[in-house]
Amino acid sequence: MPDNTRQVYFLSNGTAITAETLGHSLLAQFPTLHFKTRTIPFIDSVEKALAVNREIDQEVDGSNELPIVISTMADLELKEIINQSKALVLDPFADFLPRLEEILDTASAHASSSHRTANPSLYESRINAIDFSLIHDDGAKTRNYDETDIILIGVSRTGKTPSCLYLALQFGLKAANYPITEEDMESELLPAPIRPYTDRLYGLTTDANRLCKIRQERRPNSRYSSLEQCRYELRAVEDMYYRHKIRYLSTTTISVEEIAARIVEDTGLHRMEQTS
Amino acid sequence: MPDNTRQVYFLSNGTAITAETLGHSLLAQFPTLHFKTRTIPFIDSVEKALAVNREIDQEVDGSNELPIVISTMADLELKEIINQSKALVLDPFADFLPRLEEILDTASAHASSSHRTANPSLYESRINAIDFSLIHDDGAKTRNYDETDIILIGVSRTGKTPSCLYLALQFGLKAANYPITEEDMESELLPAPIRPYTDRLYGLTTDANRLCKIRQERRPNSRYSSLEQCRYELRAVEDMYYRHKIRYLSTTTISVEEIAARIVEDTGLHRMEQTS
Repeated sequence: MPDNTRQVYFLSNGTAITAETLGHSLLAQFPTLHFKTRTIPFIDSVEKALAVNREIDQEVDGSNELPIVISTMADLELKEIINQSKALVLDPFADFLPRLEEILDTASAHASSSHRTANPSLYESRINAIDFSLIHDDGAKTRNYDETDIILIGVSRTGKTPSCLYLALQFGLKAANYPITEEDMESELLPAPIRPYTDRLYGLTTDANRLCKIRQERRPNSRYSSLEQCRYELRAVEDMYYRHKIRYLSTTTISVEEIAARIVEDTGLHRMEQTS
Repeated sequence: MPDNTRQVYFLSNGTAITAETLGHSLLAQFPTLHFKTRTIPFIDSVEKALAVNREIDQEVDGSNELPIVISTMADLELKEIINQSKALVLDPFADFLPRLEEILDTASAHASSSHRTANPSLYESRINAIDFSLIHDDGAKTRNYDETDIILIGVSRTGKTPSCLYLALQFGLKAANYPITEEDMESELLPAPIRPYTDRLYGLTTDANRLCKIRQERRPNSRYSSLEQCRYELRAVEDMYYRHKIRYLSTTTISVEEIAARIVEDTGLHRMEQTS
């Protein structure tokens, strides 16, 4: 590991997804630096906490750069062990739970919680949304479009499928997607299966060079992946969005997370029912 | 909204996924209380920040319970506007970025970052993992199993598909899944397509009553959804795991996030290459 790479640990007695998510957001604020991250989830015993603490302190002793720890331990005894580390420990639970306890006038549980047991019906609706989105991927099934929350449309390889899956997984939305083919582009009308649902349609587009590169990986040196074809399809599909007043978004430089969050924001769809 | 339901806002100039993730983890530490949450992402102008600030202060004035704000604004001017709110504002960036700046001896960017532009090749590998997992869902394609990171196995409706998608989306792992059928259960041998890959197999199981309930929703009053059949299949598949020394996990009470994190931890698979 080069000297200028800083070691960062994400620790938790649960999945460590919160520590990772927060940690990556914080590290992204230092784009010129190099970090090496390690996630250690399920630190759920004194023994494990002591072992992790020992490992990190060895890293501290052997390194010129102080390692950083992002820790979200709910259990107080285990938290205490981790927070005694010689590394820089950032612990949002230690900072925020006491302030929440005070304003809520309630002691916090100090126990690892589950997404599932916290709200079983909410969990079921996410799983159902994933099933729905899989069945309705890539225009595979179009009969149940009256049940969809949103139908993503676009030409091949513009990010429809991962965006739908993320909308289902993260936001519990029933997201279908329908591919726009060359045949569709030659018509003045929208394709028949999506025609009745213009208010639920959301278009994706991207940069032609980018699309060409992605398609080249799939089918090199084909008509499908030629720059000319990519340009033609994107122009045609953007014309279609414009003609039928379909909201759309370019996915060229943004991630699946951002695509999904933008779509939810643009359409006024509710993110998963969040009352808990 | 009943008096005992506390309003919570998740705010960001980006997707607000970090604010939501941290926020839900904090709120989960107060399982006896009721919260109503609202996410406002993409607060990326002074105008929007002022509007959000006004809305929250109106909520403060009209409410007996002080609303809570979890805010991860990277932009300093916008952060300042939000943090002047009369609500309780918890801002991990305000708390942690100065400490990181000091230890890293570097000013933070104070700009919204993208998962995609931060690390394009990492992003591509996540998208490829999603493609792979979709193609290899439910035993649909078994020829490329030598490319998989993991193959989840189990009887119908034990959570294989959403777990695979989460492993791909969150951890960038190529996760296939293969359904174990009654025919497979009657054999001493593992099904042929997965037989060469015992070291990559990971079994899922669940509680028979729970499985029965889930299958009833799908095909009510069928043999498939009868408690007897669920019991038989789960016993047979657990025998199979035991006989072939396949690691496995019960998904009865845990979420997709936890299933995925446990599998990664149990198998020693690397979460997505996190050097950035």
